[in-house]
Amino acid sequence: MIDALQHYQARNNQQLNDWLDQYPVQQQRLIEAMRYGLLLGGKRARPFLVYATGNMLGVDVEHLDTPASAIECIHAYSLIHDDLPAMDDDNLRRGQPTCHIEFDEATAILTGDALQTLAFTVLSEGQIAPIAEAQRINMVKQLAKASGAAGMCIGQALDLEAENQAVSLEQLEQIHRHKTGALIKCAVVLGALSAGEVGIKVLPQLEKYADAIGLAFQVQDDILDIVSDTKTLGKPQGSDEQKAKSTYPALLGLDGAKQKADALFEEALSALDAIPYNTKLLEDFARYVIERNN
Amino acid sequence: MIDALQHYQARNNQQLNDWLDQYPVQQQRLIEAMRYGLLLGGKRARPFLVYATGNMLGVDVEHLDTPASAIECIHAYSLIHDDLPAMDDDNLRRGQPTCHIEFDEATAILTGDALQTLAFTVLSEGQIAPIAEAQRINMVKQLAKASGAAGMCIGQALDLEAENQAVSLEQLEQIHRHKTGALIKCAVVLGALSAGEVGIKVLPQLEKYADAIGLAFQVQDDILDIVSDTKTLGKPQGSDEQKAKSTYPALLGLDGAKQKADALFEEALSALDAIPYNTKLLEDFARYVIERNN
Repeated sequence: MIDALQHYQARNNQQLNDWLDQYPVQQQRLIEAMRYGLLLGGKRARPFLVYATGNMLGVDVEHLDTPASAIECIHAYSLIHDDLPAMDDDNLRRGQPTCHIEFDEATAILTGDALQTLAFTVLSEGQIAPIAEAQRINMVKQLAKASGAAGMCIGQALDLEAENQAVSLEQLEQIHRHKTGALIKCAVVLGALSAGEVGIKVLPQLEKYADAIGLAFQVQDDILDIVSDTKTLGKPQGSDEQKAKSTYPALLGLDGAKQKADALFEEALSALDAIPYNTKLLEDFARYVIERNN
Repeated sequence: MIDALQHYQARNNQQLNDWLDQYPVQQQRLIEAMRYGLLLGGKRARPFLVYATGNMLGVDVEHLDTPASAIECIHAYSLIHDDLPAMDDDNLRRGQPTCHIEFDEATAILTGDALQTLAFTVLSEGQIAPIAEAQRINMVKQLAKASGAAGMCIGQALDLEAENQAVSLEQLEQIHRHKTGALIKCAVVLGALSAGEVGIKVLPQLEKYADAIGLAFQVQDDILDIVSDTKTLGKPQGSDEQKAKSTYPALLGLDGAKQKADALFEEALSALDAIPYNTKLLEDFARYVIERNN
């Protein structure tokens, strides 16, 4: 599983690098900051899900590069903007200074903006599976829906609003289903759309799987913020507590949070059960999500 | 001409309002801030150019609403981000407090982000001319190209870099061709693509026209920053000088800048000469660009 993750990670990095190389060098600083935000570290979980889903459905790997790159651009932009002083005010990300620390705040804002746009450039210009060509505009639609005011952006807005407030378990799920869950779900959706009709048939099960691992991802993040250390995490350990963020361990206790992660893992596996393809890679990824230490 | 501008402005406002109404009310603050940034004031010059271009080429007005709304979302997001403290640090826009003053900085960042995404939601979901359906993905491509690190974003990056620096006329044109010109050109491109093959035939002339008025728009903006007043402008008069921004009047003198605007107007008209359709509205708009007082 780690082999597969690293394999697709390297492939995705190469692709992202190639996209950035297409820009003229006239404003090296902006492009450099985009490269910094896109390529320095990161697990490439979302691209992995595009590749693993598409691969399971028989799509050639080179036909999955485009949605995989597009979704990573959105993820990278969101991290850069979330780290800004006016947002979460984080100095460390993936073991490196955050974009506004390494460059400056104006550049970090513009870099995030330009990376969001790049996602749609990639999706509209990049190669996709011939069978998915008719779905291309649907891919744009799905990615925009998952990213904007009905998805990731509203999740971040709800998260900021919830700081220093008592939040119920239901509200916390609401936040994370939007803030991180929507884009993780979108990754399997784009992988499935790459397979055309075949993918659309298994989409409901894939979405159930993605909903479960998306939330599990966040639960495990919250757990790691307590039990891990800054070096392993690549970002400051204990920052949730410091910022008085609502978390699963805060609401359920550390053991309760671990049980929640396990339950979501089981939910993910049972969703995969109904898919008549080789779901091993997706199953392994679900296990990785709740067992990872960074 | 002012009648046509106001007519399309009202139509565009209604459309934008309808798009915002589609969001669930769970996070009213973000949606309110999006509405504030999108709908409070503004000339709707870019939507106008979509409508005027499409209208000239025989496209039904209801088939132009989608590209017109999408491009205005991009414009509105760029204003909100440009006004941020880390960028141009402006408190007044269209006679109202800027988004981060009226709401807060985090909300303004997220609002800009979500408005950029909304542009691609609109373009992928909205109604377009049947003849343009095959061009829809091309519209996404053109809008992304005009907005991102090859267009508007790099223009803003170059502009920030040029502050407090001596800039040549050539560099100044380079900045504005990207910062404002790219999106203005994109407006006529989207209008033309709405007409299918018919539009593609006249695209080179339309692009020449748009290049000229895009630059003229900026020259006139620079002139108004000197000769107008804060109330008429809706933003602080004299702010270019205060921020030591390079401008056309600073490089060419006020008379020289006016001559430059006139020359660009003539360039725009001569580009229209070669278009075998009724170009009156586009001609009137070019005149408006250099004669407007706000």
